[in-house]
Amino acid sequence: MSLMPKITCLDDVRQILGDLPGPDLEAAKAAQDREPQLTKPAGSLGRLEQLAAWLATWQNRYPPRLENPNAHVFAGNHGVVAQGVSAFPAEVTQQMVQNFEHGGAAINQLCEAMGVGLCVESLDLEHPTQDFTQGPAMSDAECAEAIAFGMKVIDAASDVVCLGEMGIGNTTSASAICLALYGGNALHWAGPGTGIDKVGIGRKAEVIGLGVRINKPEIHDGLDVLRCLGGRELAAIAGAVIGARLKKVPVMLDGFVSTAAAAPLASMNKHALDHCKIGHVSQEPGHKLLLEKLGKNALLDQHMRLGEATGAVLAVALLKAAVACHNGMATFAEAGVSGKG
Amino acid sequence: MSLMPKITCLDDVRQILGDLPGPDLEAAKAAQDREPQLTKPAGSLGRLEQLAAWLATWQNRYPPRLENPNAHVFAGNHGVVAQGVSAFPAEVTQQMVQNFEHGGAAINQLCEAMGVGLCVESLDLEHPTQDFTQGPAMSDAECAEAIAFGMKVIDAASDVVCLGEMGIGNTTSASAICLALYGGNALHWAGPGTGIDKVGIGRKAEVIGLGVRINKPEIHDGLDVLRCLGGRELAAIAGAVIGARLKKVPVMLDGFVSTAAAAPLASMNKHALDHCKIGHVSQEPGHKLLLEKLGKNALLDQHMRLGEATGAVLAVALLKAAVACHNGMATFAEAGVSGKG
Repeated sequence: MSLMPKITCLDDVRQILGDLPGPDLEAAKAAQDREPQLTKPAGSLGRLEQLAAWLATWQNRYPPRLENPNAHVFAGNHGVVAQGVSAFPAEVTQQMVQNFEHGGAAINQLCEAMGVGLCVESLDLEHPTQDFTQGPAMSDAECAEAIAFGMKVIDAASDVVCLGEMGIGNTTSASAICLALYGGNALHWAGPGTGIDKVGIGRKAEVIGLGVRINKPEIHDGLDVLRCLGGRELAAIAGAVIGARLKKVPVMLDGFVSTAAAAPLASMNKHALDHCKIGHVSQEPGHKLLLEKLGKNALLDQHMRLGEATGAVLAVALLKAAVACHNGMATFAEAGVSGKG
Repeated sequence: MSLMPKITCLDDVRQILGDLPGPDLEAAKAAQDREPQLTKPAGSLGRLEQLAAWLATWQNRYPPRLENPNAHVFAGNHGVVAQGVSAFPAEVTQQMVQNFEHGGAAINQLCEAMGVGLCVESLDLEHPTQDFTQGPAMSDAECAEAIAFGMKVIDAASDVVCLGEMGIGNTTSASAICLALYGGNALHWAGPGTGIDKVGIGRKAEVIGLGVRINKPEIHDGLDVLRCLGGRELAAIAGAVIGARLKKVPVMLDGFVSTAAAAPLASMNKHALDHCKIGHVSQEPGHKLLLEKLGKNALLDQHMRLGEATGAVLAVALLKAAVACHNGMATFAEAGVSGKG
């Protein structure tokens, strides 16, 4: 941890983003060299083969390992909730954090079922960010602090980290980030979130559009987008993505909000998310669109739209399977199985 | 086990298929009633919610349970291998069975990673079925025996059974079954299997077409298709599907061959596969087409095409997740979380 760069302002983050560590090509090659020797038709484990190689590449380690997966759920509150963008009241953020702590939420069950450690991180819930229709959601220092927090909580001993969130109003924030980064029609980025109706989505799209217009003078790069339209939990996710890269920990992003939180980094450095996979594609309609913009495929499509890192943790099953097969299978020579005739 | 109907000929199977037990609608309703109370936006766990209800429905039990999942891999040899339809020699079937027994195959690693029990069942490997381009692959008694075997091995204490296969030449058999059941172009049902090239696939399509033409006079229903064009491991899978239905065990089918083995049952009784899910969609091109014919969606798409029940076992992770969330989550009332505003 002591080796992590100190972050006090967004310019510190800009500097780190300009100089991220690259892939471990030796580990990648070791993984690729082993695959054709294993007792199966070449390529027949499909994405599992690629996941094993990807883990080795970004763990900077061969063979890859999946014994210590962890999930981080960041929680934050949003001033923009005052605009009536959510189906649930703002106090639900805090109530759900308590639910996480008492083990009653979906993410608790999924972490237990998948053998994933769970860390819940509340970010100043009593002080929502500013309503971004009135100006920037966060100051430079606030945003930098949340990013630094996200960087810090990543444990270098994790074999993968799943990043998720809880925050009433944060699909509005995520949609605004996407509109600012990629343009297009605000209605295409707005979705039902926790369950608003068509009229509500129209209202949400207006709020998103207004937020982007109002903050335009302050926005010169992706980190400005994150600061002006994001929230503390989104900034913390962006920080966790950076921290994981520096600590050689691959990242499993969750759904729309988590991916939107990471997207500003990709806009600043096109390789910034190379160590990230997307656990699942959310039913929140903006997610599919965002994945296209990022050139990323999701690992799962189970029609989920819950957040909390649920989709990311579910995808850990694929990583475990990938590593188990890659590391544990016999070779043709070891098993005395005849090769292709 | 003693309550299982005795099978000595295919007419015994026809009789059972005419009178399969239906769903437990009470268990289904109990599952549906609980979902909206759980601390998440309604429907936000997507397919996991449906899987929990489906398990309860076909386990005839509420709440559903996923503590004892088992996989059955049936192995058989095929006379049609003499027609040069496979990239690997026939002895690989036996060699891979040994690999399963020694723990070196992909399915061993996946079962261990997913906590699934593994049973490998060899069906008379020293005596391949007849080459179906010369006449029926099996006699009525042979096919009935393999079906009865598959029925018998299902343990009523299983919470789900994953059904898979190993048999050099068996994608040719699966393709021939599909062509006989659904018609169309033999080339659309033929695929690379373990890895033959385009010319090989053309040859395979000819073999499939010839097999269907030669056996046409003997084919009057789905069980005739299974007998004339299937193999012992395919018949055993069909038997296991029936046995699981009678024993209240939901089924997770694997890829193209396993689904093709079950398809004749659906042609005899359109509800025969209601207790079956498809673990994944295989890269073997016939699988997607077959799923459309059956009106079934696959749970996963990881670009796999290995067989051995690997895709089915991977999908058990989704079932575990579904049951963990359904049974373990707190309700809004229990957690003191505010409902939709």
